[in-house]
Amino acid sequence: MTTAAALIIGNEILTGKIDDTNTRYLARELFRLGVELRRVIVCPDDLDTIAADLNALRAAHDYVFTSGGVGPTHDDITIDGVALAFGRPVVRSEEVAAIIAHYYGDRLTEEHLRMANMPEGAQLIRNAEVPWPTVVIENVYVLPGVPEIFKMKFRALEERFRTDAPFVSHAVYTLCDEGTIAARLSELAAQFPNLTIGSYMKWDDADYRVKITFDGRDADAVHAAADALVGSLPEEIVVRRE
Amino acid sequence: MTTAAALIIGNEILTGKIDDTNTRYLARELFRLGVELRRVIVCPDDLDTIAADLNALRAAHDYVFTSGGVGPTHDDITIDGVALAFGRPVVRSEEVAAIIAHYYGDRLTEEHLRMANMPEGAQLIRNAEVPWPTVVIENVYVLPGVPEIFKMKFRALEERFRTDAPFVSHAVYTLCDEGTIAARLSELAAQFPNLTIGSYMKWDDADYRVKITFDGRDADAVHAAADALVGSLPEEIVVRRE
Repeated sequence: MTTAAALIIGNEILTGKIDDTNTRYLARELFRLGVELRRVIVCPDDLDTIAADLNALRAAHDYVFTSGGVGPTHDDITIDGVALAFGRPVVRSEEVAAIIAHYYGDRLTEEHLRMANMPEGAQLIRNAEVPWPTVVIENVYVLPGVPEIFKMKFRALEERFRTDAPFVSHAVYTLCDEGTIAARLSELAAQFPNLTIGSYMKWDDADYRVKITFDGRDADAVHAAADALVGSLPEEIVVRRE
Repeated sequence: MTTAAALIIGNEILTGKIDDTNTRYLARELFRLGVELRRVIVCPDDLDTIAADLNALRAAHDYVFTSGGVGPTHDDITIDGVALAFGRPVVRSEEVAAIIAHYYGDRLTEEHLRMANMPEGAQLIRNAEVPWPTVVIENVYVLPGVPEIFKMKFRALEERFRTDAPFVSHAVYTLCDEGTIAARLSELAAQFPNLTIGSYMKWDDADYRVKITFDGRDADAVHAAADALVGSLPEEIVVRRE
């Protein structure tokens, strides 16, 4: 079982100024790749907190992804936090500095060059499509908060994370009441112990009331469990499956 | 300084099936009320994890809000997790059971009645607008994952959390480059140590490139810092303030 965690760094998330959309993106992509995202922490722009959280997460998971705090301004302290976590000094990558200098040209400032900082001994990973490298140190991947760049960088890395046991998910959308269906779901959960069965009520004006999901690495079991549920429901309350 | 944390409980968030919108809502509302949200953890539907996380969060913050896992199905284990954290048995509230029985009438099942469970000694809080009570135990508020009900219940509770030192926030939207403005922001951060100054790059087709925010409890300082920034920028690169 390959596991992962995410550390979302930024006061802007904790004050509600910026919506964190990276968690959902990462969650979906890791699920698709067969990696189990077990924990997400949102922490403030505080060096000691970042370092302590990162150390706890990296010890307990195969991969840790950080999001945010990698720009040129004073509130971007992720690299310092990662370096602190690993007990390493921050050094400047001359290679990244050269990319930055070329990109900004006459507009280059010393602060732009902060984006060339990295913990000593970190790797820089890039590919042809994404020339801006990603800082990786042991099992920690340092990604930016800006969603478009987060996605671009993740896509360039994703083949590293792909497992040979991707998850299969099947959803049954129903007009059930959760309380009415609960006993049946408990039976199915007992009958299919390797599956995760979830039940999610929808409150707005969707065309269904409860979505039941079956997740697991065994496609046959996923579909057998979903079939078993559908077979026990009156036909008219099953809206669709997907 | 009044502080808060949130524990978002649910496999559905960690697999990307359901988007967690409660964090952003809670973050904004707490900010408005003058409460500092310091930490958010997203954890799976696992009893020991819920209990351990809750114990860490409640020891370190004035308020802890949980989201999710309070329905009638087998994957709803938040109440059991909270009870485990506090080392108390789960008991059934006859009062809530009566509300549930009345609401469901002939459709009532034993699983519906699971929603009347609570840790022994918990309080039930309600008001005239929201008759379904919220389970509160010491500084822990147990809220549902369904966003509409989360909001409804939070609104019924919010006056408990209001501080007499609400935050003031002012934003300056600019056409700056972050690297160009970074040194000036560092100066302002040093000059106004009681403010939190943030800089957020926008990557899509918004009408600005960088939003700079000034947050603090001292409105005069917030506006003085924003004025000082705007005064040092060419007029044509300030898009708006709000």
